[in-house]
Amino acid sequence: MKFKYVAFDADDTLWVNESYFRETEAHFSELLAAYGDAETITNKLLEIEIRNIELYGYGVKGFILSMIETGISVTNGSLPEAVISKIIELGKELLNKPVVLLDGIEEVLKALQGKGYKLVVATKGDLLDQERKLYRSNIEKYFHHIEVMSDKKEANYLKLLAHLDITPDEFLMIGNSLKSDVLPVLNIGASAVHVPFHTTWIHEEAELEGNPAGFAEIEKVSDLIEAMDL
Amino acid sequence: MKFKYVAFDADDTLWVNESYFRETEAHFSELLAAYGDAETITNKLLEIEIRNIELYGYGVKGFILSMIETGISVTNGSLPEAVISKIIELGKELLNKPVVLLDGIEEVLKALQGKGYKLVVATKGDLLDQERKLYRSNIEKYFHHIEVMSDKKEANYLKLLAHLDITPDEFLMIGNSLKSDVLPVLNIGASAVHVPFHTTWIHEEAELEGNPAGFAEIEKVSDLIEAMDL
Repeated sequence: MKFKYVAFDADDTLWVNESYFRETEAHFSELLAAYGDAETITNKLLEIEIRNIELYGYGVKGFILSMIETGISVTNGSLPEAVISKIIELGKELLNKPVVLLDGIEEVLKALQGKGYKLVVATKGDLLDQERKLYRSNIEKYFHHIEVMSDKKEANYLKLLAHLDITPDEFLMIGNSLKSDVLPVLNIGASAVHVPFHTTWIHEEAELEGNPAGFAEIEKVSDLIEAMDL
Repeated sequence: MKFKYVAFDADDTLWVNESYFRETEAHFSELLAAYGDAETITNKLLEIEIRNIELYGYGVKGFILSMIETGISVTNGSLPEAVISKIIELGKELLNKPVVLLDGIEEVLKALQGKGYKLVVATKGDLLDQERKLYRSNIEKYFHHIEVMSDKKEANYLKLLAHLDITPDEFLMIGNSLKSDVLPVLNIGASAVHVPFHTTWIHEEAELEGNPAGFAEIEKVSDLIEAMDL
């Protein structure tokens, strides 16, 4: 067995996520429709979100704060308080969305666990939010533990390997983001499988050239076991 | 060597924290002075913070959101937008406070590392915020890794032990909160050392009766090595 740990990204790899964010963004734009069209508002939100990541990190709480800041910005300081309350409410609703597993996930986890791999969830976002989703998903039992990472750059993966006491060749990452789940993992000499999801946040977009060692792309997660020969 | 892992709480155990929150709360009350006295405002804030913990978890981002919600509540919906901007600014300042280590911490970490213990930081709060503080503190090098926990109840400590692949008798926790760092740890059969800090958040207050097995209380962290016989 080549890999000691097989790590799964969570949002849009184990369960639906980006679609909920797009839905919330649409509601948010409607709230501010008097101050600009949807594209202008969501572009401003993206700009403020990305600027705030350095300080807030990823996750819903930072997203709510960035929506409030965007509201203040696009209204030039005349944002009605009722809208702020509504933004906070939208954020709380986002934290309470049902967890919808992607097709075939549970079968794959069961098969990998049966083969003796240690499985972990390796995800960005707010810790409590991710733990809650994992708990509600009913697939927590397949995982050794959950690793919430402040970012998914090479340095973060190197820390993760040190923490797990393993070498790069013992680590396989599965995820929907080339930028976060694949490129940095390959760059540190570990392996990665890409499972695209239909919607990707602009900030997560990236490209991979050629077919590097330790990499496989699959269409659906049920192809994973076969692809693990890489 | 009895313990495999020695875990340190972060806020008010490794470095000053509660004092910064109290300072921010004082500024926040001043901003809302037209709507109530400081006690009324901070009581309302505490009530909203505690209600939101279930959804937001611990940490500065949730604290900012709770301050905004408190502002809306105490002004009955007439909170000036300038105050909301100021609250967001206070929150960002809180995330950028200098990290001030408590006396004697580095010497103790160095001594424990020299004795071959694996040291971890086990803390609540926002992941990125705690990682940043650890990085800025210059004591990151003594720690095997940082564990940010969504809460510090018995179930959370049991998960932590499973994650570290150790039994309760191999785990020692050091911290300033009887409620979070001591009682749940003793309840699962592990050991704990209490190092009180001069200021404790009301939500963290608790009492310990008698002198149970596996427990020691010390006045300053430099007494730790001696106390580790427990």
